[in-house]
Amino acid sequence: MILDFAPCEEIHCQFRNNQERNHLFRMCERSVVIIVLKPDYTDEQLQHICEKVEEMGFRYELSRGVQRTVLGVIGEEEELRNAPLQAIPGVENVLSVLKPYKLASREFHQDDSVFELGHGVKVGGKSMILIAGPCAIESEDILFEIGRAVKDSGANVLRGGAFKPRTSPYSFQGLGEEGLKILRTVGDELQMPVVTEVMDPRQVELVVEYADILQLGARNMQNFNLLKEIGSTDKPVLLKRGMSATVQDLLMSAEYVLAHGNKRVILCERGIRSFDSSTRNLLDLAMVPNSKGCSHLPIVVDPSHATGRPDLIPKMALAAVAAGADGIHIEVHSCPEKAMSDGPQALLPGQFHELAEQIRSLAGFFEKEVAPTPQVV
Amino acid sequence: MILDFAPCEEIHCQFRNNQERNHLFRMCERSVVIIVLKPDYTDEQLQHICEKVEEMGFRYELSRGVQRTVLGVIGEEEELRNAPLQAIPGVENVLSVLKPYKLASREFHQDDSVFELGHGVKVGGKSMILIAGPCAIESEDILFEIGRAVKDSGANVLRGGAFKPRTSPYSFQGLGEEGLKILRTVGDELQMPVVTEVMDPRQVELVVEYADILQLGARNMQNFNLLKEIGSTDKPVLLKRGMSATVQDLLMSAEYVLAHGNKRVILCERGIRSFDSSTRNLLDLAMVPNSKGCSHLPIVVDPSHATGRPDLIPKMALAAVAAGADGIHIEVHSCPEKAMSDGPQALLPGQFHELAEQIRSLAGFFEKEVAPTPQVV
Amino acid sequence: MILDFAPCEEIHCQFRNNQERNHLFRMCERSVVIIVLKPDYTDEQLQHICEKVEEMGFRYELSRGVQRTVLGVIGEEEELRNAPLQAIPGVENVLSVLKPYKLASREFHQDDSVFELGHGVKVGGKSMILIAGPCAIESEDILFEIGRAVKDSGANVLRGGAFKPRTSPYSFQGLGEEGLKILRTVGDELQMPVVTEVMDPRQVELVVEYADILQLGARNMQNFNLLKEIGSTDKPVLLKRGMSATVQDLLMSAEYVLAHGNKRVILCERGIRSFDSSTRNLLDLAMVPNSKGCSHLPIVVDPSHATGRPDLIPKMALAAVAAGADGIHIEVHSCPEKAMSDGPQALLPGQFHELAEQIRSLAGFFEKEVAPTPQVV
Amino acid sequence: MILDFAPCEEIHCQFRNNQERNHLFRMCERSVVIIVLKPDYTDEQLQHICEKVEEMGFRYELSRGVQRTVLGVIGEEEELRNAPLQAIPGVENVLSVLKPYKLASREFHQDDSVFELGHGVKVGGKSMILIAGPCAIESEDILFEIGRAVKDSGANVLRGGAFKPRTSPYSFQGLGEEGLKILRTVGDELQMPVVTEVMDPRQVELVVEYADILQLGARNMQNFNLLKEIGSTDKPVLLKRGMSATVQDLLMSAEYVLAHGNKRVILCERGIRSFDSSTRNLLDLAMVPNSKGCSHLPIVVDPSHATGRPDLIPKMALAAVAAGADGIHIEVHSCPEKAMSDGPQALLPGQFHELAEQIRSLAGFFEKEVAPTPQVV
Repeated sequence: MILDFAPCEEIHCQFRNNQERNHLFRMCERSVVIIVLKPDYTDEQLQHICEKVEEMGFRYELSRGVQRTVLGVIGEEEELRNAPLQAIPGVENVLSVLKPYKLASREFHQDDSVFELGHGVKVGGKSMILIAGPCAIESEDILFEIGRAVKDSGANVLRGGAFKPRTSPYSFQGLGEEGLKILRTVGDELQMPVVTEVMDPRQVELVVEYADILQLGARNMQNFNLLKEIGSTDKPVLLKRGMSATVQDLLMSAEYVLAHGNKRVILCERGIRSFDSSTRNLLDLAMVPNSKGCSHLPIVVDPSHATGRPDLIPKMALAAVAAGADGIHIEVHSCPEKAMSDGPQALLPGQFHELAEQIRSLAGFFEKEVAPTPQVV
Repeated sequence: MILDFAPCEEIHCQFRNNQERNHLFRMCERSVVIIVLKPDYTDEQLQHICEKVEEMGFRYELSRGVQRTVLGVIGEEEELRNAPLQAIPGVENVLSVLKPYKLASREFHQDDSVFELGHGVKVGGKSMILIAGPCAIESEDILFEIGRAVKDSGANVLRGGAFKPRTSPYSFQGLGEEGLKILRTVGDELQMPVVTEVMDPRQVELVVEYADILQLGARNMQNFNLLKEIGSTDKPVLLKRGMSATVQDLLMSAEYVLAHGNKRVILCERGIRSFDSSTRNLLDLAMVPNSKGCSHLPIVVDPSHATGRPDLIPKMALAAVAAGADGIHIEVHSCPEKAMSDGPQALLPGQFHELAEQIRSLAGFFEKEVAPTPQVV
Repeated sequence: MILDFAPCEEIHCQFRNNQERNHLFRMCERSVVIIVLKPDYTDEQLQHICEKVEEMGFRYELSRGVQRTVLGVIGEEEELRNAPLQAIPGVENVLSVLKPYKLASREFHQDDSVFELGHGVKVGGKSMILIAGPCAIESEDILFEIGRAVKDSGANVLRGGAFKPRTSPYSFQGLGEEGLKILRTVGDELQMPVVTEVMDPRQVELVVEYADILQLGARNMQNFNLLKEIGSTDKPVLLKRGMSATVQDLLMSAEYVLAHGNKRVILCERGIRSFDSSTRNLLDLAMVPNSKGCSHLPIVVDPSHATGRPDLIPKMALAAVAAGADGIHIEVHSCPEKAMSDGPQALLPGQFHELAEQIRSLAGFFEKEVAPTPQVV
Repeated sequence: MILDFAPCEEIHCQFRNNQERNHLFRMCERSVVIIVLKPDYTDEQLQHICEKVEEMGFRYELSRGVQRTVLGVIGEEEELRNAPLQAIPGVENVLSVLKPYKLASREFHQDDSVFELGHGVKVGGKSMILIAGPCAIESEDILFEIGRAVKDSGANVLRGGAFKPRTSPYSFQGLGEEGLKILRTVGDELQMPVVTEVMDPRQVELVVEYADILQLGARNMQNFNLLKEIGSTDKPVLLKRGMSATVQDLLMSAEYVLAHGNKRVILCERGIRSFDSSTRNLLDLAMVPNSKGCSHLPIVVDPSHATGRPDLIPKMALAAVAAGADGIHIEVHSCPEKAMSDGPQALLPGQFHELAEQIRSLAGFFEKEVAPTPQVV
């Protein structure tokens, strides 16, 4: 990428013939990072840097300027990423020029990913999903009551937590397998695909038996062993963004799942940490077009966890649709005050019914559709 | 503070007579903060606290529990706010129970504020504004060309900077009064109200001569003397949220303007600082319903400064409309690559035309209107 | 909640008899939260709130003021925490007055926790630890070379990663059990306690066989099942703060480990996410006295991961000692440029030697000691 | 920086002779940014980019690779900074390779800046300052009492606010000129240099009459007109870091003052905004060595505003000394509970006396000195 005209003898040989030139082109092809040297670097440091870079098995090209000297380092992308170039004495800065994720990138897959979730529900492209249900599964009666209500309002995926990550060891931790069975039963009765969280690699096999979609929670977004386990299943994954994850961090976690063979990853924005405590988290809606620009994966937005405030959820759900989200995730409970966890942020079925109607009609405005699930009697 | 065991028996024993009851009620009326003592407080500390509180001219009520001892401190709100109760030895925590702003609050003014901006343009309630124009005013020709274009596309307020806050002292700082004259001329020709930034209390008098709306920039949101000067004018104010301001901070700055007599404050969300550098700032759309819940002031959203990325601006503008914004602020330039400042984030007139159409039709979907400005030949 | 007008006359009228007074005191003992009603609450809402609170099995006390009406809700702390009071219509705010963690709190354990880590090394009180070693274990030769060097410089705990959490699925993931064996061998030869990360509940049993101290990484701070597994072992735990965890979040995660029976938790500050990308993370040294004020657990500071910059590590290590840290964690590599992961932030043995000397002498200044490990030939 | 071997004819002419080569060196000298093109850029876009870059008056050099095509754009640094290269269609990323500030940089001024503040007090190099005093000036008696106490404890600069930036318009705003007179009088009596905040360009002339050091508050760090006014005075400036300012933002604001002729700028770290509300702000001590690495300006740390908690101030003050700070800024009040503003974070004279002693002895440990001010009777 950068030719060496400092030791000016070599320069001539570089263009002696086409073969040489082509060789240089091939190098450019693989060049990934640019090293900027400190203004006060010494010749010893420069020599050391060049030696190190070669030791690491890379080629380099040097440009010695008066204000700055710069190296273009050339090699296999992944090796370069892991190479501690920054650490070499005399190096001021290392500029990377390629994205660290591949399978999740638009370059790799031009069109939006669209895939099946069960019971004919699709996500991506023109197909939006509306995920609704209680935070935690409490009993079959309550879940059925809520599921029936949200299905009638137009939700096409049912959610419910059987394993609950709770910040306090003294809080309700979920019903476990009993909860999964309830979820499966209610999902079958209502013919809705069901999504539930898996917190632990040891639970994956169990949860796969019962769930149509595996949810990976925000706190586990960088639980890499769990990502690998989930990547080895054939179930779609709802991957929630961590509270302090950049869009790139999220796509790197998606890359884990994709790299292990599972191609059906749905990203989920659920709010990040910020300094204003008036909302539970800060909903980052710009990440929707931002992520869609560099990745083909569908994105669901969860205003319930993002705001933690029922008074803000409806407007944020509509804003998410306008931002281009492929789905909305809403917590609903027949009696928030009774909910064993996260009650405060749940909508009542009546509130959800009204919101679902608005979501569907706004989706229509943008020529998208929230397809209903099969009729049940 | 907890005086009245309303439903229960004990109530009767509490008050010897109505006079005493009324006295206690009057106290409740004024009670603002709750002091929680440290678990290991000493009797000396408690006595000291009680004395201090009385010295400060407040009344208090004490509850001595086994786990915690708590005081309800009673007095004029503002005095209590400024009272350094937290500093008294033995105090663990001071809980405030009222909002620190008044004139900006819904309690003070139930209905949405709606007001005139000039040339028949209104903001608030069902009336949305669409502010567009270049970041900086460069010449009358360019501004007229852009102004004409955005007016034809449906913008009803023209923006342009004559005084530019720039992080680098070496960057273009704006045309100053010459720029204001150009803005006024173009605004009159196009019959559009014009908004421009004022950075300095010494500029207020000058800017008031030329502008219909005064913009107070994010970096000056807590420039309190500037807020006071602007509060003393009769021009509507576009108050931009600071990069690390909470919604309450923003409303406190609005309170400054309101408290100095200027009732026409428009809040503006333009993104806050966060950890993901893939966008310039982080657009906080939840602040729209959040602020509307506690304040009557209209809110404009500026996706141009919030994202700094033309590829994200359109979706974020539509999301802002869905979130309930009373206006959208878009930077437009006929040739972003030529723009003297902030070019990268400006839309081209053609891109803006398309977006403005979507904004107007989405506003219609929500039964709002972006009223056009008078025809000009 | 404010039942007892201790100093004043009114007191007598309040209680018909001692039995009643005692009853009230018992209530105070258990009172945890204060509900502030919305200014515009209706009587129906108030009645509904009172009913709900009673349904939930709590007692309440009401204060009806003109500006605000407030309830003191009384019950078992944990039940109250999980009660969705915020969700009841008419409720504006719920103020908690006790800390959500118990076993980790100073109230529960007044004195600093001090405990053994192996080979006579203690942490807490006057005993500081100096943890050093490479990010990842690469080979026995390299680890021994580095271990020998850091021991000679005064480090008394050896670190090395066998299981590496990496943001990229394509990055080196660690040597696994082979790495653990190497670590154990080198630790025994050098007679240093060794610490290594465990990422997965399924690894705990294995890691416990080889390690003296289990490290729980920042990305797993809220991996609650892993916290439970670690809480069930008898090994000291180095609990790293998550990138967006508050001090309270960290103490809640410690509470998980403590609540499962493992009393030897060492907190570790390693930087949190912030908006300034000039350092890898933002080192929060105020968390040291902040956490020590409310918890008895020892705290280690890791300037290597916090800054990611060798040029900043020494000053930050010294600042951590001055802030009152009970230990310092430094990455050291004999050749950072060769390190398979995180090389850029590692110090060279020579740099570490100089730093370790300064740390020990500064520790002496504060009357603390970094005890050496046994001589080995 | 990057040679163009795509149209391969030109290449040969590039090295025909030394003159050519020297020409290329001169170009490198001025090269500042690297443009990375989108993977899917079109030839039209590339041509357009090249034309634009030339129109802007820059030279460029092209490297066309298979994975990426990159341009090195060459021109005057400042022009390049303001050039909206990012905006040109087809551009993915623009990488800058030089710092945007000059006068504040180490490249510009190798050694630490050291300068006089009055009464023989120096800051920088081996000379530390200890700034102490009340947040706000309340009366001559109180200020003299506090000033006397802090001088006796070893403080060598007296602080006090006459103009107070307050988030609430209803809070005490300072005594204004009366306060300045009191500060001057007390400073003269005690023979201590005095520092006070200036909030408004219109106040600069007045404050210059009375103060030895001008404080520019965090909320005004990017009040550029105020920076210019202060840059035109001959008084040292205490420039406080904004709550969401990066180290580079701070240095850019310093650059404003320096560029207007005032060379005596003292940076001040006073905490930045973060998500953990258990401290008022987040003290960023790593900024001390970080800033010292790239700038020659002295740095003062203010743990009082940073933490807002008297229980954390002493440890953070000592940590700041260890981090290499050139000064410490502490709020002291004879009776925090009486202080008209910010009382809660002030130390009592007794607490300050103890802390000052520790600071001085720790400064000694690092071979620095807090020089006392002249004896007064």
